[in-house]
Amino acid sequence: MPTEAQMKNAMQSYIDAFNRNDLDAVVALYSDDATVEDPYGTPAKSGKVQIEAFYRASMAYGSVLRLSAPIRASHGDAAAMAFDAVVTTPQGEGRVKVIDVMTFTEEGLINSMRAYFGPGDIEMPELT
Amino acid sequence: MPTEAQMKNAMQSYIDAFNRNDLDAVVALYSDDATVEDPYGTPAKSGKVQIEAFYRASMAYGSVLRLSAPIRASHGDAAAMAFDAVVTTPQGEGRVKVIDVMTFTEEGLINSMRAYFGPGDIEMPELT
Repeated sequence: MPTEAQMKNAMQSYIDAFNRNDLDAVVALYSDDATVEDPYGTPAKSGKVQIEAFYRASMAYGSVLRLSAPIRASHGDAAAMAFDAVVTTPQGEGRVKVIDVMTFTEEGLINSMRAYFGPGDIEMPELT
Repeated sequence: MPTEAQMKNAMQSYIDAFNRNDLDAVVALYSDDATVEDPYGTPAKSGKVQIEAFYRASMAYGSVLRLSAPIRASHGDAAAMAFDAVVTTPQGEGRVKVIDVMTFTEEGLINSMRAYFGPGDIEMPELT
């Protein structure tokens, strides 16, 4: 079982790598057969090739991930975090309010990720 | 599919009912065959009898649930929220930092609940 510290450190590394636009570092946090369901309710991406393509596209928005509260671990192989993905546009800041739940391998690699947010959790500035 | 508003309203009702110690109202938010895995990593409670017993015991601590950030819905049948369960002791406030993920029936009843927190997410005041 991964430790609480391993899981929290991996999630913090994920935030940090995403925010410095380090695609390789984000993908390296995943296991080879990991799945990403982002957002939850859509078909999962599976394996490093699909996951890398997904993050390359995600990072193109230039958004910055800001934790809303401390990362939570668990009594099992999962951890969870609430954050805002904040994007700066010419019209002002927009944000997507998200909760990610990740499961981890014995070695502390991300084995699955699910991102919970709905259309109503997306706040974009008015286009004027 | 339950709507985003249905799921968020149910979660807010859950917080409100818990905080006014209304056991019946909490249990009424669940479907008859719901499961509760609280904390994640432990055996799930299943069905209304076990779920009621679980909440009766939980509520005996007198804790108050305080949202850490707005409730998130999803593009599917689930929603998620980060909160602190705050307990007041003679030695001061303690808290458990939690993220709950719930799935919902068509009718907007809670079908499953998983609570993510680990031993390291429990902060209790020093006993002096």
